[in-house]
Amino acid sequence: MNNKLQELKNRLMEVNDLRSANALLSWDQSTYMPPGGITGRARQMATLTRLAQEKFTDRAIGKLLDELRSYEESLPYDSDDASLIRVARHDYERAVRVPPAFMGELESHTTESFQVWAESRPENDFIRVQPYLEKTLDFSRKLANFFPGYKHIADPLIDWADHGMTAASIQSLFSELQKEQLPLVKTILSQPPTSYACLHQNYPEGKQLAFGIKVIKRLGYDFQRGRQDKTYHPFMTKFSLGDVRITTRVTTDYLGECLFSLIHESGHAMYEQGINMEYDGSSLAGGTSSGMHESQSRLWENVVGRSRGFWNYFYPQLQKTFPKQLRNISQDTFYGAINKVEQSLIRTEADEVTYNLHVMIRFDLELALLEGSLAVRDLPEAWCTRYQQDIGITPPDDRDGVLQDVHWYGGVVGGVFQGYTLGNILGALFYEAALKTHPEIPSQIEKGQFDTLRQWLTDNIYRHGRKFTAEEIVQRITGGPIRIEPYIHYLRTKYAELYKL
Amino acid sequence: MNNKLQELKNRLMEVNDLRSANALLSWDQSTYMPPGGITGRARQMATLTRLAQEKFTDRAIGKLLDELRSYEESLPYDSDDASLIRVARHDYERAVRVPPAFMGELESHTTESFQVWAESRPENDFIRVQPYLEKTLDFSRKLANFFPGYKHIADPLIDWADHGMTAASIQSLFSELQKEQLPLVKTILSQPPTSYACLHQNYPEGKQLAFGIKVIKRLGYDFQRGRQDKTYHPFMTKFSLGDVRITTRVTTDYLGECLFSLIHESGHAMYEQGINMEYDGSSLAGGTSSGMHESQSRLWENVVGRSRGFWNYFYPQLQKTFPKQLRNISQDTFYGAINKVEQSLIRTEADEVTYNLHVMIRFDLELALLEGSLAVRDLPEAWCTRYQQDIGITPPDDRDGVLQDVHWYGGVVGGVFQGYTLGNILGALFYEAALKTHPEIPSQIEKGQFDTLRQWLTDNIYRHGRKFTAEEIVQRITGGPIRIEPYIHYLRTKYAELYKL
Repeated sequence: MNNKLQELKNRLMEVNDLRSANALLSWDQSTYMPPGGITGRARQMATLTRLAQEKFTDRAIGKLLDELRSYEESLPYDSDDASLIRVARHDYERAVRVPPAFMGELESHTTESFQVWAESRPENDFIRVQPYLEKTLDFSRKLANFFPGYKHIADPLIDWADHGMTAASIQSLFSELQKEQLPLVKTILSQPPTSYACLHQNYPEGKQLAFGIKVIKRLGYDFQRGRQDKTYHPFMTKFSLGDVRITTRVTTDYLGECLFSLIHESGHAMYEQGINMEYDGSSLAGGTSSGMHESQSRLWENVVGRSRGFWNYFYPQLQKTFPKQLRNISQDTFYGAINKVEQSLIRTEADEVTYNLHVMIRFDLELALLEGSLAVRDLPEAWCTRYQQDIGITPPDDRDGVLQDVHWYGGVVGGVFQGYTLGNILGALFYEAALKTHPEIPSQIEKGQFDTLRQWLTDNIYRHGRKFTAEEIVQRITGGPIRIEPYIHYLRTKYAELYKL
Repeated sequence: MNNKLQELKNRLMEVNDLRSANALLSWDQSTYMPPGGITGRARQMATLTRLAQEKFTDRAIGKLLDELRSYEESLPYDSDDASLIRVARHDYERAVRVPPAFMGELESHTTESFQVWAESRPENDFIRVQPYLEKTLDFSRKLANFFPGYKHIADPLIDWADHGMTAASIQSLFSELQKEQLPLVKTILSQPPTSYACLHQNYPEGKQLAFGIKVIKRLGYDFQRGRQDKTYHPFMTKFSLGDVRITTRVTTDYLGECLFSLIHESGHAMYEQGINMEYDGSSLAGGTSSGMHESQSRLWENVVGRSRGFWNYFYPQLQKTFPKQLRNISQDTFYGAINKVEQSLIRTEADEVTYNLHVMIRFDLELALLEGSLAVRDLPEAWCTRYQQDIGITPPDDRDGVLQDVHWYGGVVGGVFQGYTLGNILGALFYEAALKTHPEIPSQIEKGQFDTLRQWLTDNIYRHGRKFTAEEIVQRITGGPIRIEPYIHYLRTKYAELYKL
């Protein structure tokens, strides 16, 4: 049986190596590739995607998985071997439904589409990118249709990102959340706005980066096994458990961009860096779902990074870094500014209270596009209408409207946004659980100590990689299913301090 | 027949894409990869190398090549299709002799060995890297032995880099060269040394890079299809004809390092960027041999970049860039300094007159290692002995001795050094031929105009890619075989101006 398992591992490692190489090609495209490289790069990424898909859907893997079933069943559910076989089988059964040539074409298309988007967004040119998005939508539908028997066409795409979830289950969770959150938003927005003028001064790029990097080092992002680069859209990517990189962007007239995107991406990265190194290159070496991944980026960015305690430690250092800009700004004013609730246009910069509204708009539009009830050419208008309706403002242009997020332009339409809100819910839930075991965490954070929290997250979440599903992890930690109460409680408590609730 | 050709092209493209991806993995390893990435990277590069080798040695390619033979023979020798089939067959027949698993192991080993060397060289620690070099030597011998029937064990490795050459033919060429060159070196070294103190002042890194980049843009290196990064050892690499990158290193107390290595590497890069874009991703898309490639880097670096005319144009600009350092340095003094002949330790920084002596030492040591007449553990001593004997000085340590070149630590032993001297010979030969057609080139260079020269090189050499062998290109240009006379004539003429000959 050990031979079979070893053969399975070798084959999975080969697939992993192709995918990791492809991830580097993609990282390079976003960071350093010269313009002339795009044609060759798109072709190479398509080739690697297709080869990985061919190798992974090789019947030999299916046969090995069958042969290993009794061995798997003889082991405890949570043993490394049983988990590897189980997760590989899950992936395999999904992958064999999609032809390798399709995956290659999709990859080739999205690589091109990404490049066109990257040029179109600054130009505010939706018309240029529209035919690419139409083709992407077509690809997305085809992809979903390789999984017949769904209730909603988005279901297979949602399941891909957040295994076990469907359009219906998310809609139900989101509507429960909305019931709690809309009144909160309304109450806060009816009050006089907080000023965040202090964040909108001139903050030189170099100092912003240096400060942000100091912060994420302190949180525990390991630069020996990662690095940071500038890109148009921040992201985290992984080539092995020893090389987990993040990117950020810097706006010199806004202090919030670089710092919080660094903390956000390093939250993703610490999750990957915290996985058991023995899993490297295997099916277990990754975050277990989109929502779980976002729970970590959002936990570190918001629950930790926008907390009073965190700034008790870091604000004096920030003032020292930017004396001219912050000398006369009290910590309270700064804290209010980084937690200001407002009607805004950009999801990644939205405050915690309105953030989920941005996500829900995108989620609903995705469903409508996939259903065919909304055409791509009508998307910019639909976007504006929903922003006016839900958030009360209309984007002045597509750049800050429908072109703002990379997701639909560099991947598929469907299943790519719900993870952010799931992440908010899960992040608060995990933080509450961590505090139950370690009530000393908040006072440690005030001293700039993050090891207890990171270690708890590592022990309970990170190290397992993909061994458990999101649902299983929540069950193991809380003994129950996903609940929105800790998140609502977190929001209410935090914002009751800043606004009248 | 068109279907067969298309299938061959598709299969070759797939191999090319795997190799190009691997080249990016290697570039990243040298430029930006964090230390923790090495284990995963070595494994991934081994996987990609093995897969490329498996795909390339697939019998289906052999069968297609057989089926296409009559089509090939029906076409003119220099047609694109005939050339593609001919070159692919040459590569295929060589590749099928080497098992894919061997290539994967070799790749994995050299990736690790490179990393160890990169850490050992600054530490002056040959002992640490010695077992890696021993294993490399073992791999190199095994590689050669997949090609039985050679006269010298280095022959297959030399042929790999410079098709048509053997240890014997190179030894004969080198001894012919030595007869001419040794007296020249002796005559010059017996004269009072030129001062190059002007080059050894403090030259800030940023300004050095900016000036060097301005120069190579002017020469014709296209940054839309390339980029420049810093590495420990400068190199050129290509991911497609639209993405040909170079790297350099900067020494702040020596002006010659960054500038001339930039010109050198952009010589390599302009060769690749000049290849017919229609060949992209095919077997024809590359320089045709190691010697041909070096002929271009050395031509641009030395024949152009260290010429009087070149500095008539650029020296005033260089003085403006470094006024404090160069205001009182005459152009003649500067010209003497960048062409100073001396006994020196570092090949890449050696002057044109002694350079080939450095190459010949390495070439002879390679042969001795491969023959088994020299053990790796005795290499540092042998290195020192030869330096004392041939150049008259002994390296103070291994860092500037046997550890100085990456070649043996990041590749195989054998066939990797002769190309530099072949390049010197060929570069002068081509320049002479270009001047026969365009006697106006030197006066254009004095005006900072390089288009006529680059266009002549593109038309006669670059655009063909691998269509013709080095021998064929020399034949097409000069009507005869490789000759050393133009090189000797070039050296004598140039140095007669600087020294008494």
